[in-house]
Parts: sequence; structure tokens; C-alpha cells
Amino acid sequence: MTERVREILSWYKSDNPGTTTNLARMLNHGRLGGTGRMVILPVDQGWEHGPVRSFGPNDAGYDPHYHFKIAIEAGLNAYAAPLGFLEAGAADFAGEIPLILKANNHDLLADEKDSWQALTASVKDARRLGCCGIGLTIYPGSALRKEMYETFRAYAEEAKAAGLAVICWSYPRGTSLSKEGETAIDVGGYAAQIACQLGAHIVKVKLPSDHIEQEAARNVYEKEKIPIGTLAERVRHVVQCAFNGRRIVIFSGGAKKENDADIFEECKAIRAGGGFGSIIGRNTFQRKKNDALKFLDEIIKIYAK
Amino acid sequence: MTERVREILSWYKSDNPGTTTNLARMLNHGRLGGTGRMVILPVDQGWEHGPVRSFGPNDAGYDPHYHFKIAIEAGLNAYAAPLGFLEAGAADFAGEIPLILKANNHDLLADEKDSWQALTASVKDARRLGCCGIGLTIYPGSALRKEMYETFRAYAEEAKAAGLAVICWSYPRGTSLSKEGETAIDVGGYAAQIACQLGAHIVKVKLPSDHIEQEAARNVYEKEKIPIGTLAERVRHVVQCAFNGRRIVIFSGGAKKENDADIFEECKAIRAGGGFGSIIGRNTFQRKKNDALKFLDEIIKIYAK
Amino acid sequence: MTERVREILSWYKSDNPGTTTNLARMLNHGRLGGTGRMVILPVDQGWEHGPVRSFGPNDAGYDPHYHFKIAIEAGLNAYAAPLGFLEAGAADFAGEIPLILKANNHDLLADEKDSWQALTASVKDARRLGCCGIGLTIYPGSALRKEMYETFRAYAEEAKAAGLAVICWSYPRGTSLSKEGETAIDVGGYAAQIACQLGAHIVKVKLPSDHIEQEAARNVYEKEKIPIGTLAERVRHVVQCAFNGRRIVIFSGGAKKENDADIFEECKAIRAGGGFGSIIGRNTFQRKKNDALKFLDEIIKIYAK
Amino acid sequence: MTERVREILSWYKSDNPGTTTNLARMLNHGRLGGTGRMVILPVDQGWEHGPVRSFGPNDAGYDPHYHFKIAIEAGLNAYAAPLGFLEAGAADFAGEIPLILKANNHDLLADEKDSWQALTASVKDARRLGCCGIGLTIYPGSALRKEMYETFRAYAEEAKAAGLAVICWSYPRGTSLSKEGETAIDVGGYAAQIACQLGAHIVKVKLPSDHIEQEAARNVYEKEKIPIGTLAERVRHVVQCAFNGRRIVIFSGGAKKENDADIFEECKAIRAGGGFGSIIGRNTFQRKKNDALKFLDEIIKIYAK
Amino acid sequence: MTERVREILSWYKSDNPGTTTNLARMLNHGRLGGTGRMVILPVDQGWEHGPVRSFGPNDAGYDPHYHFKIAIEAGLNAYAAPLGFLEAGAADFAGEIPLILKANNHDLLADEKDSWQALTASVKDARRLGCCGIGLTIYPGSALRKEMYETFRAYAEEAKAAGLAVICWSYPRGTSLSKEGETAIDVGGYAAQIACQLGAHIVKVKLPSDHIEQEAARNVYEKEKIPIGTLAERVRHVVQCAFNGRRIVIFSGGAKKENDADIFEECKAIRAGGGFGSIIGRNTFQRKKNDALKFLDEIIKIYAK
Repeated sequence: MTERVREILSWYKSDNPGTTTNLARMLNHGRLGGTGRMVILPVDQGWEHGPVRSFGPNDAGYDPHYHFKIAIEAGLNAYAAPLGFLEAGAADFAGEIPLILKANNHDLLADEKDSWQALTASVKDARRLGCCGIGLTIYPGSALRKEMYETFRAYAEEAKAAGLAVICWSYPRGTSLSKEGETAIDVGGYAAQIACQLGAHIVKVKLPSDHIEQEAARNVYEKEKIPIGTLAERVRHVVQCAFNGRRIVIFSGGAKKENDADIFEECKAIRAGGGFGSIIGRNTFQRKKNDALKFLDEIIKIYAK
Repeated sequence: MTERVREILSWYKSDNPGTTTNLARMLNHGRLGGTGRMVILPVDQGWEHGPVRSFGPNDAGYDPHYHFKIAIEAGLNAYAAPLGFLEAGAADFAGEIPLILKANNHDLLADEKDSWQALTASVKDARRLGCCGIGLTIYPGSALRKEMYETFRAYAEEAKAAGLAVICWSYPRGTSLSKEGETAIDVGGYAAQIACQLGAHIVKVKLPSDHIEQEAARNVYEKEKIPIGTLAERVRHVVQCAFNGRRIVIFSGGAKKENDADIFEECKAIRAGGGFGSIIGRNTFQRKKNDALKFLDEIIKIYAK
Repeated sequence: MTERVREILSWYKSDNPGTTTNLARMLNHGRLGGTGRMVILPVDQGWEHGPVRSFGPNDAGYDPHYHFKIAIEAGLNAYAAPLGFLEAGAADFAGEIPLILKANNHDLLADEKDSWQALTASVKDARRLGCCGIGLTIYPGSALRKEMYETFRAYAEEAKAAGLAVICWSYPRGTSLSKEGETAIDVGGYAAQIACQLGAHIVKVKLPSDHIEQEAARNVYEKEKIPIGTLAERVRHVVQCAFNGRRIVIFSGGAKKENDADIFEECKAIRAGGGFGSIIGRNTFQRKKNDALKFLDEIIKIYAK
Repeated sequence: MTERVREILSWYKSDNPGTTTNLARMLNHGRLGGTGRMVILPVDQGWEHGPVRSFGPNDAGYDPHYHFKIAIEAGLNAYAAPLGFLEAGAADFAGEIPLILKANNHDLLADEKDSWQALTASVKDARRLGCCGIGLTIYPGSALRKEMYETFRAYAEEAKAAGLAVICWSYPRGTSLSKEGETAIDVGGYAAQIACQLGAHIVKVKLPSDHIEQEAARNVYEKEKIPIGTLAERVRHVVQCAFNGRRIVIFSGGAKKENDADIFEECKAIRAGGGFGSIIGRNTFQRKKNDALKFLDEIIKIYAK
Repeated sequence: MTERVREILSWYKSDNPGTTTNLARMLNHGRLGGTGRMVILPVDQGWEHGPVRSFGPNDAGYDPHYHFKIAIEAGLNAYAAPLGFLEAGAADFAGEIPLILKANNHDLLADEKDSWQALTASVKDARRLGCCGIGLTIYPGSALRKEMYETFRAYAEEAKAAGLAVICWSYPRGTSLSKEGETAIDVGGYAAQIACQLGAHIVKVKLPSDHIEQEAARNVYEKEKIPIGTLAERVRHVVQCAFNGRRIVIFSGGAKKENDADIFEECKAIRAGGGFGSIIGRNTFQRKKNDALKFLDEIIKIYAK
């Protein structure tokens, strides 16, 4: 047990040993084990965007075993996926990679004014599949967020009692927010704060832009001269909004990028700003396996420094 | 236990022996027992379309015992029906044919913008009636699909804990989809993916057309040159969308056809594309018993090859 | 135990002995005991239409004991009423007449587009009051029928586990149906089918007219030349829609008629068509007691033949 | 135990001894003990109309102990109030006056088309506070009455199992009723009937006017020549609608009246019509204590005759 | 145990010793211990207004430990915060300061016609974190208040059974109220009354203005010549509306004020009017720590007099 992991675990003293053990399992697994940094593979895009858009570019991805193997061979900290994908491999790869059950999901088969996520798995499912954690998405800004917060809370309570770690995908979205506002620095900080206040152990947010959405927030940024000019500064601000760094915050990669170098620069900024790591899906599984392993190797090296 | 059935069961290692035993019961029953192929008789049309439209053409079908007998005499793998139809025969034909309780239903007595299915039976009902599995319909694309997914999930969790197999009728439908889109290849693949991610053991979908509904999907089909020109290719694609074939996918027959030869061609395409079989209702029970048995004999021979 | 009652009970083999015992109690009680025919007194009109419209014409009916006495003295098979009416007499007349708790109700104190029924009693209430069965109304055709089906199902499951008989008042109604359509032969058959599929042991429907509401159904009636010209033929068709006669179907009397002879003709048609009996409320309790007993005597004689 | 109380209890034979004991406690308490008549003090106006409108005219009423003392010193049968008011005195006055927990409430801080009542206490609360009964308001005529009936039913079931008496405030109200209709004789009778059918032991209604709201009801009143000309006749009719007098019906006083003599006349009419007593709030607590005691003394004398 | 605390506890005799012990813990803690007065630090603004608006002005406040330390060092009676903030420090500061779990919250990421609060923590959470009490906000006047009252009630029942104190933040708000009306004296008194009737042990309200919102209330204020001219008189009136002083009522500070002297004057008026203390958030944590401690010292001295 490294000093850094011990320090991180000290932030979660209100949790039972079951939960801190599972947090430790993820922090200590893979090539970044013990560094306090994490790289997680999430594969819920088959549901979120449909199978052909997700796996058509590299059809090995249709097979649920493929993603387990990538996460294991690359030496990642954890693999996160919906119920079906985990059921299809949890027994085959038992004990080889910490699992996170993504317990709510949404599809694109109909248009909606305000987004929701359907509950698609339970805490019991996470336990029977040997998962270390359970994760849910909330959409701060959605007209439906009240139900989302309440559902998250109920799941978190049950998960903590069962000794699981709780991960929150906190993605601002909804009719009251502009498209730019979804990744605005003030909104991103607010989304991180809400996830932490809801009791999440690990918070996943998008990398913030320097746009400011809410006037009342802009006044404070300007009056207090809060630095948000560089990506590293914005990461640092979001981490501060996450209980001044007392909660693990990781950042998502987004759509497949043309240029890997851009992603590497983002990872360096996350690291420089005190972020805890990355969660990278499409940029991993939408390329051939060897390319994906090389790509992840670069990212791991950035965080391992 | 044949190698093929053993292989199929290996995909369900996360399930308890109760569930894999029930999957095996269905896979090993009837004339296709052991082949890994299935033909199932579903009779929920009395509810879905009304009794006279369903059973008027062959009034033997009003009697619930009739369908048990057809399924048994034809040597099918299983018989699926709503609560009342199973209650009216489960004791009389106990042990003679694996049963699937169709646990939600819909009628045509009122017009609706977005379709729903009412819960009409429970997992407990399935157990007390000696069923091997329980099945529910979801409508991906309906504005009401969130509730449908969540209901399916809850039933699936309870059914798996009780050692039952879970079957998903995944039928895209709803105001956001065009009529053509309901059987579009991209939408069909998406529907199969969702059913698998929800944790279904067996997925029932409609045979897909070569229509593509969503532009974002079309781009991938064209860029990746995914073959969807023939029915067999489309079946293969849907099976791929169902965890690369790691889940049992069967295809429905639809309305009574004029020409049996068309159905036989469809079955051949299902078989050629790697589909696992057919679920055939109206084409079975809307003809005289002897004709039905002959008709099913032809289909079984196609799959047995 | 007569052969006929034994035969009827054989249709309910999926039920536990508690339920078949309660079915037998009703079938064997009163002057029609053992014949397989039933006449039931229902008194929920105080709720459904208000007390003065119901009991003003014969004010003895305000007293809950009055209806128990009528049912007992006339030698009927059972008495059905809401919670309050049963609570007010169940102890006084314990063991003298099988009781059915009518567990949902509706009043006319406000106009509504689509009808509902409020749950006004529970399965536990039925048990503590010594009832043989519990009954609920559903409105196939109402925009609210999904909830009604689901509620019926839940009650039926609990009632069956408790050894009670389950009675379904299946009354088509709702904005999608024309006024004529509510008693159309196709809609009536559909309503009987749904009640049976939902697991009802006894189905109560209205006497159908020869109107056909749905075009798709009309095509079948015409093509298959299904006889629906006489009331007896229509009764026979509805009984066929109720699992080909494997479920007990009884018919309601409706509003108080001017001429008793019309009612007697209806009963003869029900008998001729294979119906199982009548449920007669207002025509019973809206006349003086002696007249009511004479009237019921006539009806019983028709069914006893 | 007087003959009259014994007779009244005989109407509740379906209830357990816990409930009949609690009914007896209320019937036997205070100066009307044993007469079969009741006067109850209800104080929920702080919630229903706000504190200043309720207690401003006599500010002793802000203190929850004040109302306990009035009810005790005046020798009333029971005191009814919301959770907070009972919590603030139940221990101090334990055993001195039967208590009724008013378990739902409504405020006037917003306008609404159709009225509701929020659940503000539970059956468990009634038990831990030593109450004899629990009471809920329903609004027959409200578009929300379905939920209100169902809530009442659930509370009543739990209360009866716990040996409590159940009181129903049945107040017609809602968009489908005219203002006059809320106290119309037909509507009042209907409201009493519904409360009884829902299983209430004690029904509280408003004094009815001779207005008739529903045409179908008017026809019966006229055809059957039902006397509703005097207040006593209307009380008698409402009592008849309450299971022909087999349920305890008490009448409410309404807003503070200018002239006490009018109230005394009303009480005489209630008594003459066979009503069981009065529930009097504002006319009691909106005057000085001594005046209130004198006023209640007059009323008790009327009922004691 | 001082006489004053003993007196206050005597108002809560209906509660179990667990609850009165927890009330005593808060009343006896810190520099105001034993006086019957309370100053509480609430920090839920990170959720209610966003992190940068709340903690930007003094960025020490991002750290959850900071607020524990302020509350402990200033000698306050209790610290109130949402789940996440308490989880992040409850183990570190166990036993050093009574905690109140703020169990519902709202954010400003979307506009809404009527306000709600999402449930974000449970009574079980309060118990596992060692809290003395649990608090919820209600919005009397909101179109959604029915649900809020019912939720409060359910939490209060569970909390009381678990021996916790229950705190109600009663903030009038909603489309039926004018902006001025939210702090009107009549509405403030009504809000205090509702909180008490719902069973709150401690009620938190805003300082009322001399505006009167409802005409029916104005008539009484004028007719009865109720003094509401000074802040102390209005505090006295609100305390009267809270069961004539038999419930603990504390007043909130609101937005950060330019001039501390104004706040001190408010505290003096609260004290003069018989209020029980203050709950002060932004005015505490939006200044440097030493300034905050000096500021709180002044307030404590006012209440300690």
C-alpha cells in the first residue's frame, strides 16, 4: 500500500471497510496501481449510440470478451459496462480486472426534450457479478434531474451498505443549458460539487471549456480573479469544486479524435491540474487491438510520471 | 448433452444453474433438441388482436388446450402464452412441453400515440405454473420505453434469482420511428443490442429489411461496407449486434402469409445467417391442426439440417 | 358433488385447493347448487349511482342487512358488495351466503373523459370478512386500462395465493369506443378474452348486441360466417371467447326493466347459449321484498331446468 | 355500558375488540357518555386557514394545551387535531380525553383547481400518541378523489388492524360541483354513503341544504316524495344514506356564527333527525374560554335530552 | 442540565428519550450550551447556489473540513450540511460538534415554475454518520408542497423512531405567492405553524417583513390590532404561531450582508422577540476564518446575555 493510496483512502473514513477495500482494489490494480491515478475503460456506447456506430469501425468490439481483454492486457484500473456486457464475461474473467457496473443507460431511438437514464441494473447485480463499484449517470440541468438525484442517492446508500464503491457520471444537460453551457467551467464545477454532495466516491466529468454559463457565477470568477485560462487551471478548479480534492475526479475522453496527440495533451493537462485520470471508451475500442494497446500505453506513461 | 448446447450454455456462465438448466431444457426439448436451434409457438394474439381475429379462422384455437397439443405433437422447443392460457393447461400438460410465461400484453381496444404493455403476470406466476422462462415485450423507440426497460430489468433480476430463463421480445415502435424504421436493419440491430444489455438470455426480434433509419448509422454502414443486401446477411448482422452471437436470437414470423414457401425461405435465411430459430404463431394456429403439423414439420426439417 | 361441478372445477387445476374449494362453495350454494349455474346478487349501486337513485325506489335497500336477507331467502349462489356493505353484515350472516368483496368502485360526482375505478378494499379485507371471492371491474377500451389490468393482476395473484376466487367485471368503456361499441359483440368477446387471460376464475360481462365495432373484426365475422344473429348465439360466442367455455361467464342485468318477461327471455337465451348464469342487482332490490323473491324464483327456475 | 351504546357497538361486529373498545371509549366519555350522542372538538384550522385567522380572535388558541383543556373541562367526547397539536399535549393530558389524529391536511397558501389533502400523519403516529381514532378528509367530487379514496382505504385497513376507530370527514368539493352543490342534499347523502362504503366507523358531514345538484337524483326525490323540506328531515335522510343509521354520523358547525341561537337550533334539528352529534371547532375556540364552556354546555344539554 | 433546557425539553414529552437526548445535546453544546439559545452553521450553498458563488469569495470553504473547524472553534451548537459534506468529515471530527444532515437539496441549473427539493440523504445516513438531527426544506406555497409535506412526514416518523431530532426549513415560495409574500408576516407565521403541525422539533424560518400577503389574514391583524411594526414584534408573532413558543424557532441570516451591524441588530431583535437563535451560513464562511470567528463571537455574546 503506497502512501498516496493510503492518503486517498483517508478521505473516505465515513465508509465501511468493504467500500474502502474496493476503492483500494481499483487504485492498486494495473500499471498505474499505487500511483493514485486511474485509467478506466467504459463501454456503454452500444446502448448509448447503437451497436453499428459503436462497433462498426472495429467489429471485434461486438464481442463482449474483447473489452475485458483490452482492459486486462493494457493494465487499466477498471472496466465499466452495462449489465449485459458484464454478464457475458464476468465469470470468464473473474478476478482479472476490477469491474464497474454501469447501472443506468439511455438510447437514441427517440427524440426527447429533456434527457433521462433508465435504470438497467441493480446493486444486487453488481454484487452477484463481483463488481468493485457501481456507476450511474446524472444530468444536472435536466428538468428530470430531481428523479435522477433521488435514484442515485438510493443506489449509493444500498451500494455503500454492500461495501461497493459508487461512481457518478455527472454530465450537465437539459433544456435550460446552452450547448456550450454543457461543458462550461462553472457548470462543470457545479456538476462535480453535486456529485460529491450526493455521496459519490469517484466523479466522472467532461473536460471543461473556458465558457461561463451563468451570470451570477461569472461575477465571482471575475471578482475573485479565479484562473481558468488553461485546461490545467480548469481541471484544478473542477477538482477544487470536488471537495478541494478530497474526492477522486476523472475526466472523459469524448468522441473519437482524429489526432492522438490532442488526447495526450489533454491527459497531461489533467495530470498537471491535479486530476486523477481518464476514462476512455471510443478512442480505445474503435481502433484495432494493437493500436489500442499502444495508445493506452502512451496515456498510462503520462499518468505514471 | 451435445457439444453445441454445451457451447451455448457456456455463454451464460454468470447465471445460476437454475437458469442454465432451464435454458438447457428448452434447447434439448422436441425434435430440434440438441441442435442449438429452436422453434417456439407463441399464442398471445387473443389479447394482442382480439379473439375473433385470432381464432375465428380456425376455431379450435379458442380452446387453450389446443395450443399445448400442437406444440407437443409438433415437437417444438417451447410454448409461450399469457397467464390465462397457461393457467388453463399447465396442470393438464405438466412436464410435456417447456413453457414461457408472456408477462406483459397490450390490446387494440383504444388508439394510442405511444405503445405500452401492461404487466399481466409475475415471476411468481411463472414459478407456480412450472415455466422454464418468462418473457416481456419492450418497444425501443417508444416514448414510454424508459418504464419498459426498467420493468424488464426488475423482472429479469427476479427471474434469474429464481432460476428462470428470460426472453425479450424487442420490437422497435414509437412516434420517433417511421413505419419502415420499425424493421430497419440499424434499428433491428439496436433493438437486439438493448435486449442483450438488459440481460435477456433469449432475444426475439423481427426479420429486418434493408432500410436504414438513422443517418448516423447509415454513415457507418456505408463507410465500413457492412453487407446487408440479403436477408441472411441482415440476420448475421443482427446476431452480431447480439453480443457477436453470444446470445440466442430468434426471429418472428409476423402475420399469416399467403404462401408457405416464403416462410420456408425466411427460415433458410435465418439458418444461413446464424440465427437460432423461429417463433411462429398465427401461421401455425390459423390453419387446421394437420396442416399446422405439416407446416411445422417443414420448418423443423430446415433447422435440423 | 355433482358431475357438472366436478367438470367445472377440472378447468381450474392450476389453482390451489383453497380457490377450488371457494369456487365449489359458490357453485354448490343455494337453489342452483350443483347445477353449474349461478345467480348472484350485486349491490354496489349506492356507490356507483348514489344512494337515492339506488335505494329511493325501495327504501328497505338503505339497510345493508336487507340485501343479505334477500340473497339468503331467494337461495342465490352469492352476494357481492363493496367493503362497507359487507362489513355491516358479514358477522351477522356469517356462513349463510357466500360473499364476494367488490374491491374497486367509482362514483358519479364528477365528469371524466376516461373512467377509472378506485381501489376500495383489499384481499386482506376479503379474508377477514370470510369472503369466498374478490371482484374487480376493468374497463377495456379506457385510456386508463393499463393501470386497471395491472391492478387486477396484482389482486388476483394475492387472492389466488390466499385461496380466494377471483371475479372480473369486464366492461368495455372509454373514449376510443362508441356508445354502441361498449356492448358490441366483437368488443364483448374481446373483453371476455382479456378477463380470462388476466387469470379471472369468473367473468362478468354485459349481454352483447349484434353491433360490430372494429372493422378488422367484422371481416372475420363475415368471412368465417360466425353466427351472431340471436342473443343465444352471441352468448355462445362470448363463452367461446372465454377459453371455449373453460371459464365461468355470467351476464349482467343492467338497468331496471319495465317488463320482467324481457329479463326472463334474456335468462333463457343465456342458458341456451351456454352461459353460466346472471348477476342481477337493480331489478332485484328496487322492488318490494316479496316481489323480488318471486322475480328471483322465476329466474332460478329457468336456470334450474 | 348503556343499552344504547351496546346497540351502537352491535353495528360494528366485523371489527376487532380493539376498535369497538375505542368506539366505546369515545361514546362513553364526557357528559354525553352513554347517550349515544357525541360532541367533538376539532382544531385543524391553524393548518387549514392559517394561525392568525384561526387563533387571532382568541390568542389563547395558539397554545396547543388550551384545546385539550377546553375539551376536557367541557366534558366532550373527543378532541381531534393534526400531528403537531397532539404531539404537543398527548403526554401532558394522557388518559384525560379520547384523541383523534387528523391525518391529512390542506393549506390555503396557493390556489388550486381541484383540492387535495396531504398526508401528514400515520396510523403508527396515532398509536404512539395513544389515540382512540384516526381521521381523514375525502373530497367526493374532486378530480383527485380516486387517490383520496385509495389513501383512506389503506389507512382504514391499517387502523382497523391496530384496533383504532376510523373517522371520515366527507366533504363534497371539486370542479364538477357547483358551490351550492357542495352542501346539496343529494350530494351530502352520496358523500355519507361513500364514506360508509369505504369502511368508516364515524362519518362527519356538513349540514345539507335543500338544494338538489344532480338531475337523476332529483327525479327520484320527486317521484318517491322523499321529505327534505326541514333540516331535521334532511339530517334523517343523510343518516338513512349512512347505512340506514347503522353508522355514526355527526355534523360540522362551519364558520363562526354571529348568533349562537342558530347553532342551537341546528343541534336540535340534528337530534330530531336522528343525527349522532356535532363537531364544533371555530365556534368554540374563537371565543374566550368561559364563553366557550358555556356555549358547549348548552349544546351538550340539547343532545343529552 | 439548566432549568431552561429542562423546560424546553418538557415541550417534547411525546418524543422518545433518544430524541430528547439529541435535542439536549444540541442545546447543551458550545458556548450557548444551557441557555436555550442556539447558533447553527448551515453549509448547503455549494449545492443550492453552486460552488464558485459559495466558496469563491473565501476558497478555504471548498474544503469540507473547514466548516467543521469553524463550527467547533466558534463554539456553535450544531453544524448542518448535505450528505457529501458530512461524509467527508464526520469520522474526522466525530464527537466534536452535533451534526444535522440536510436531507433534501435543490440546484440552480434549470429554471422552474414551482420549486422542489430532491431527496439526497436518508435517516439511515444520518444514523450511520452519528448525526443528532435530520433536516428538510419545505416550500409552503409551492404547487408541489403536497409531496414535500408528505416526504417530510415520512422522514420525521422514521427519524423520531430512530431517536433523532427533526428540523424543518420552512420557506414559503411558489407561483401563488408574490416575491414580497415569501417573507410576509402572515405567510411566515403560517409557514411556522405548518412546520410545527408536521411534527418538527426545530423550525427554521426567514425573518419576516411587515408585509401582509393574504387579505383574509390582514382583516384579523387589523381587527385584533396584532402588533407587527417592529422586527422583535414580528419575531414574537412567529414564535406564537409556533405553538405559542412550545417549539424551538430559529431564524436564518440570508445573503451576505454589507454591514455586520445590521446582522447584530437582527439577532438582538430575535432575542427580544423570544426567538431561539440564528442559523448563519454565507455571512460566516464567505469571510476569512479569523473574521468569521470574531463575527460569530459577537452573535453568541448577543444571545448569551
